[in-house]
Amino acid sequence: MRHLLDFSGWTRARVDELFQTARAMQGVLARPIKQVPALKGRTVATVFFEPSTRTRISFELAAKRLGADVVSFSGATSSLKKGESIKDTLQTLAAYGVDAFVIRSAAAGVPHQATRWVEASVINAGDGRRAHPTQALLDAFTLQEAIGPLKGKKIAIVGDILHSRVARSNAELLGLLGAEVWLVGPPPLLPRRGGFFGARVTAELKEALKGADAVMALRIQKERVSGGRLPSEEDYRARYQITEARLALAKPDAPLLHPGPMNRDVELEGALADGPRSLVLRQVENGQAVRMAVLYHLLLGRAA
Amino acid sequence: MRHLLDFSGWTRARVDELFQTARAMQGVLARPIKQVPALKGRTVATVFFEPSTRTRISFELAAKRLGADVVSFSGATSSLKKGESIKDTLQTLAAYGVDAFVIRSAAAGVPHQATRWVEASVINAGDGRRAHPTQALLDAFTLQEAIGPLKGKKIAIVGDILHSRVARSNAELLGLLGAEVWLVGPPPLLPRRGGFFGARVTAELKEALKGADAVMALRIQKERVSGGRLPSEEDYRARYQITEARLALAKPDAPLLHPGPMNRDVELEGALADGPRSLVLRQVENGQAVRMAVLYHLLLGRAA
Amino acid sequence: MRHLLDFSGWTRARVDELFQTARAMQGVLARPIKQVPALKGRTVATVFFEPSTRTRISFELAAKRLGADVVSFSGATSSLKKGESIKDTLQTLAAYGVDAFVIRSAAAGVPHQATRWVEASVINAGDGRRAHPTQALLDAFTLQEAIGPLKGKKIAIVGDILHSRVARSNAELLGLLGAEVWLVGPPPLLPRRGGFFGARVTAELKEALKGADAVMALRIQKERVSGGRLPSEEDYRARYQITEARLALAKPDAPLLHPGPMNRDVELEGALADGPRSLVLRQVENGQAVRMAVLYHLLLGRAA
Repeated sequence: MRHLLDFSGWTRARVDELFQTARAMQGVLARPIKQVPALKGRTVATVFFEPSTRTRISFELAAKRLGADVVSFSGATSSLKKGESIKDTLQTLAAYGVDAFVIRSAAAGVPHQATRWVEASVINAGDGRRAHPTQALLDAFTLQEAIGPLKGKKIAIVGDILHSRVARSNAELLGLLGAEVWLVGPPPLLPRRGGFFGARVTAELKEALKGADAVMALRIQKERVSGGRLPSEEDYRARYQITEARLALAKPDAPLLHPGPMNRDVELEGALADGPRSLVLRQVENGQAVRMAVLYHLLLGRAA
Repeated sequence: MRHLLDFSGWTRARVDELFQTARAMQGVLARPIKQVPALKGRTVATVFFEPSTRTRISFELAAKRLGADVVSFSGATSSLKKGESIKDTLQTLAAYGVDAFVIRSAAAGVPHQATRWVEASVINAGDGRRAHPTQALLDAFTLQEAIGPLKGKKIAIVGDILHSRVARSNAELLGLLGAEVWLVGPPPLLPRRGGFFGARVTAELKEALKGADAVMALRIQKERVSGGRLPSEEDYRARYQITEARLALAKPDAPLLHPGPMNRDVELEGALADGPRSLVLRQVENGQAVRMAVLYHLLLGRAA
Repeated sequence: MRHLLDFSGWTRARVDELFQTARAMQGVLARPIKQVPALKGRTVATVFFEPSTRTRISFELAAKRLGADVVSFSGATSSLKKGESIKDTLQTLAAYGVDAFVIRSAAAGVPHQATRWVEASVINAGDGRRAHPTQALLDAFTLQEAIGPLKGKKIAIVGDILHSRVARSNAELLGLLGAEVWLVGPPPLLPRRGGFFGARVTAELKEALKGADAVMALRIQKERVSGGRLPSEEDYRARYQITEARLALAKPDAPLLHPGPMNRDVELEGALADGPRSLVLRQVENGQAVRMAVLYHLLLGRAA
């Protein structure tokens, strides 16, 4: 594995091997000194053409905990303003001796293109609506930790499915792991057709939640749910917010996930996020371990 | 000591013990290789909801010189813009394995609240008008180094007292150390009543400076001294600027402090800042040592 | 050598010694673990009053690869907004224990002034139109690597000469190394008279390119080539863009350089930048090695 762009070509065996490394990284993170020198002298560049403090910090700490040097490049303050192309930006950073690029872009496909421009490893940290594979990996890892093997498990993903790279990558990875993925949201925020890796798509929240083994609420982009044919924020809450009562439709103790940042009391009742069924902070913690595992596999050439 | 929020509950013994560590840190800083691995593998997050390059860099270097990893989170470029609550931001960072939070906020009380949200240590790097305890510690440390034990010493603090967390924290700490603190400034910039830990409050500059063992000029927020009932910048200079002549009212060689950043020729005559009585740069230097000591005590659990 | 401001007082011997160190640094950069602990415990501050992600990252990585700690200070987010002077900013950073300042400023002369304000070493990373010595060093190093000793070689530098600190520093250094430097561009973008260290100045592109051993295209500041007496972007392309055909006037295989960031298809045909004669990315790579060598010489006191 040289790049992580999406899950095309992945096997369950590769996921298992990566998760095994992630469990070892959890061990490192449980120590008072959360550091191993595995990537000492290597350089990881975060290149974010779209702002995201959380994901950037998660990757940067993952790299530092493995002993790597980190450089941060943000589109907003860069030579791009001076007219330089993304290709030249990446090739320039590569010439500084960057070993891995962590790229986020508003446009789909930029990380894929990057693999043709530079020799270094490329990790997709979110490209448009297309994919966000490390988020899906940390979600699957967290789910497996909480409810065991995912084969045959019913997972309901609720919210703005249409615009969500998190939904798309989760559908792809959870499908690969044998889960039964349900995607549910207001009709204007559902995909018109296929493309979601065999997941079931519905506007009926009850149908999706009924007997679910786990529920994942997605972030609602406020600017998307206010205009035109789209539901108002109140409509959304009334019909799709995950509440205590609605969560009762799922299996007893079915956990609740959210990729963050949350709009408390929009996507879910604020209290649920702090309740015993919430895995929200566990997702964040596991994100560290999973991203450390990804960097380790890509840069040390583990044949996963 | 698990958090540093203000000086509530502090004793002179605790201050002495902390200053003893700070003197050891001065020794580290005097070496060509200004580094000890005391906090290797620990992670310190600076979380600034209000911009301050100086204080942030001072803490970040203090943490790095102790071998810690540092992550920086600035409110301006964060998920807060996406509607995430401060609580969720801090809990997310905590889930990345942050051991200590250095928090600055425009609203008073945020660092206190943070101690209920996260397990990690919390250091208040300035909250509203309330407190700025590391500034007061470095001021007291610098004063003690220059003029000896503070018991019975007269310290005049001049400027916008009302809005100043520096004045408030200095009054609290210097009072604890037995100094006689005088707070002086234009009447609209003085506190209406008490709340300043027994310090004397006056609008008469001469009275405050007379026989003072040390003088501290505070930064004037230009936007606060121009409107309405407030003095104009010229008025301020005419009546409260620390000049050579006015400083002559204090004890011979009484030193002059300023927390920075200075408006030269507003709060004080520019030449005084570069003169032999100025401790301005010594304050900055000692800020490093004191912040290293604070991190050391909080994270290595010295029972100060 | 304590500071690097420009090449005043430099000898060929000093350049040779620095380049020898830079070649050793290339060796470090060719290893999988691109790190040596030469500057462990030292602190390098990048202080950019004018934004430049590329140059800043290049210096920061150079410092980190030598084991130094790095702090970044950007004028845009700093105390300068609060009215602090540049002098106070630098002295404050110096009091944090900074060993070397890398300074970029829109105003010429700021790095020179800085040497009077702080004890630390100062590296000029570009001051106004005046000088950009590390760029000239990496250019000369890259040229020498490609075409051998520069004595007697004809080097054509093409573009906005008048406003270019890169042209100025290259003219100074290449002249010192015995090269014959030609500066060429539209008449309004040429210097009125001298001051370019004996370089020949012309508006005739053919004359400058004819028989050249190497060609360097400069970045065109788009805002400068649109107004008033200045050529339009189309005019510029038509008359001064480096094209395949025009490059044929130079010696066979004469290499093409550009300091970046490039406006592809303005200063040069985009395809040339990716072609076999382009040294653009080699310049970036060598920039690392040369900047490591500069930091090493300044901070470890090599008597170059």
